[in-house]
Amino acid sequence: MLPAPARPGMSRDEIDTPALLLDLDAFEFNLDALDASLAGRNVRVRPHAKSHKCPAIARRQIARGAVGVCCQKVSEAEALVDGGIANVLVSNEVVGATKLARLARLARRAKMLVLADDAENVRALQKAAEEAGVELEVLVELDVGAGRCGVAPGEPAAALAGLIVAQGNLRFGGIHAYQGGAQHLRTVAEREHAIAKATTLVRETLAALRDKGIAVPVVTGAGTGTYPIEASGGVYGEIQPGSYVFMDADYGRNLDGEGRPVATFRQSLFILATVMSRPSPTRAIVDVGLKAHSVDSGMPVVADIPGATYVRASDEHGVVELEPGTDLPLGTKIRLIPGHCDPTVNLYDWLVCTRSGRVEDVWPVSARGAFY
Amino acid sequence: MLPAPARPGMSRDEIDTPALLLDLDAFEFNLDALDASLAGRNVRVRPHAKSHKCPAIARRQIARGAVGVCCQKVSEAEALVDGGIANVLVSNEVVGATKLARLARLARRAKMLVLADDAENVRALQKAAEEAGVELEVLVELDVGAGRCGVAPGEPAAALAGLIVAQGNLRFGGIHAYQGGAQHLRTVAEREHAIAKATTLVRETLAALRDKGIAVPVVTGAGTGTYPIEASGGVYGEIQPGSYVFMDADYGRNLDGEGRPVATFRQSLFILATVMSRPSPTRAIVDVGLKAHSVDSGMPVVADIPGATYVRASDEHGVVELEPGTDLPLGTKIRLIPGHCDPTVNLYDWLVCTRSGRVEDVWPVSARGAFY
Repeated sequence: MLPAPARPGMSRDEIDTPALLLDLDAFEFNLDALDASLAGRNVRVRPHAKSHKCPAIARRQIARGAVGVCCQKVSEAEALVDGGIANVLVSNEVVGATKLARLARLARRAKMLVLADDAENVRALQKAAEEAGVELEVLVELDVGAGRCGVAPGEPAAALAGLIVAQGNLRFGGIHAYQGGAQHLRTVAEREHAIAKATTLVRETLAALRDKGIAVPVVTGAGTGTYPIEASGGVYGEIQPGSYVFMDADYGRNLDGEGRPVATFRQSLFILATVMSRPSPTRAIVDVGLKAHSVDSGMPVVADIPGATYVRASDEHGVVELEPGTDLPLGTKIRLIPGHCDPTVNLYDWLVCTRSGRVEDVWPVSARGAFY
Repeated sequence: MLPAPARPGMSRDEIDTPALLLDLDAFEFNLDALDASLAGRNVRVRPHAKSHKCPAIARRQIARGAVGVCCQKVSEAEALVDGGIANVLVSNEVVGATKLARLARLARRAKMLVLADDAENVRALQKAAEEAGVELEVLVELDVGAGRCGVAPGEPAAALAGLIVAQGNLRFGGIHAYQGGAQHLRTVAEREHAIAKATTLVRETLAALRDKGIAVPVVTGAGTGTYPIEASGGVYGEIQPGSYVFMDADYGRNLDGEGRPVATFRQSLFILATVMSRPSPTRAIVDVGLKAHSVDSGMPVVADIPGATYVRASDEHGVVELEPGTDLPLGTKIRLIPGHCDPTVNLYDWLVCTRSGRVEDVWPVSARGAFY
């Protein structure tokens, strides 16, 4: 783990770069905004911790009423349980004896839930839970249109649930129906269409389960892009938004019903960069490249400075084009909005929490790199 | 730092995933191949350690005659010096008092070289070196066509060299003329054209320096894509290939004079992935997504399995399309060739060294995440 790039009390200009900044005012606004947007809806919130990998944030989400958190990997779950989180859904399949044994051991210390989409994997989960002397709650993952993991809706899903019910150390936890491909569809109409299709597939599956007499504790899913739709549909009982705490440039391109960027949440996450070269009046080079942000959803966006555009990244450099007359001297620290928050956060050991330009706290990204 | 995913003696199937594998036979072949390709050329080798971030590899490069290594950040240099490397060029501008002080302190323990492309920065380097009571060797970075950092060739570069010469604690180390944009040009003709242009700009600069009576200890630059050109041009005295130890899918697309992939080096770096879901006969999902490889140069390529194509990555998943009949059961471990080695290595704490399918050693990626 690298030393933290800042200490409480520092001004922004004293922070070493690259640094990941969390604007606490915007972050707390986002926590409030999620609650406000769900007023009157009868859904539980289980935020996704793969976005932040940070127990300090997970604890704040739980303190506001979240039932627990999600994560994607057993090693992430270990970091979260170590950080005081008592209820963790690994919203993913866990395959292989080593990982299954670790998952089962975690269930001695916290309520652990996990997904399955395969009969052989269900039997391996039972074996691991039995050997550890624990109970695991297992949800059936449906493929509701994302084309990733998941069993086919209806009868195949109900059959797998039946297999889970039959295992001595497993409890059937419900249906996991996350439509990842819908989160970044740009218009409300597109997102509503995708979630309507997903919901139809969930209903089909619920009918098949009813026919088998299997009770369904919960239908869970949804992300920052679509959760208002799932939360008001009457089928999903739990939602899993993750990025809402931070936002990013890609989520900033989602549109509301009037064709304007969705304004529910504020950008709270920034990368602090230093101008390390000024080779020409229209070009600045910053010290933030491919090893300090993920470009899978495009380049970061320069905050605060109109006329400055981050156009190209190499391993350790970012090329920023400047409109003539833009004042950006060597050594200036500038803020960038990452293209995609999740894989960017994963590159940092520390989250530097600021308020009104001062460092207020420094939180470890405890599950950074936790991909086992 | 996560626990290592493997121990010496393990078979490939016992390695936890995702894991970064180094095929030692191919790696050693590549070390030999670089030497062989330079036979009869009068150039020094200073490999770039930003690719591997691993002192165990740097020590092997030095043992074969490299004069030292390059890296891009002061914190990388710290990890390399801690790992026993006595001669490190930070082939980048270092800006900001904190970083400059750390750079100067390193010069008490190792020979440190650094680039400059700005007069104010040269004065800051002098101040830091003076305060630490050390000498720093400073090379002038030229922009030879990559459009990133660097001063203009000719008179501006010579003026900056003159300023370096005039500082009491700085020594003028030569000209840094790396054409990063040329490394991945696909044809030999394109690469030769780009390096010919760069070399012309270097010659112009050497003439301007001669006019000023400033001796030039070395012209350094070049990468895995172009180094045979610089090494035979008579102007570059030092080359800096980095990726040659590993190779990647993107370098695998460079062509030789006959239009075939350049075959000087072998692929030694792989990502080991586990098949974690088999939702359909033509789709396998692996546990390696955006947090386990960098997609800036495209998707990874599936090794060993004809008919399997890694088509899409999300945070923790990779979607692999299979031709009908491809046998890939749940839990199978498969090898992927990363699209771009440097930012992919930066995601791993450990390099699992294998020979003939057995783990022989596990090396820490000591400078992983070292971007300060």
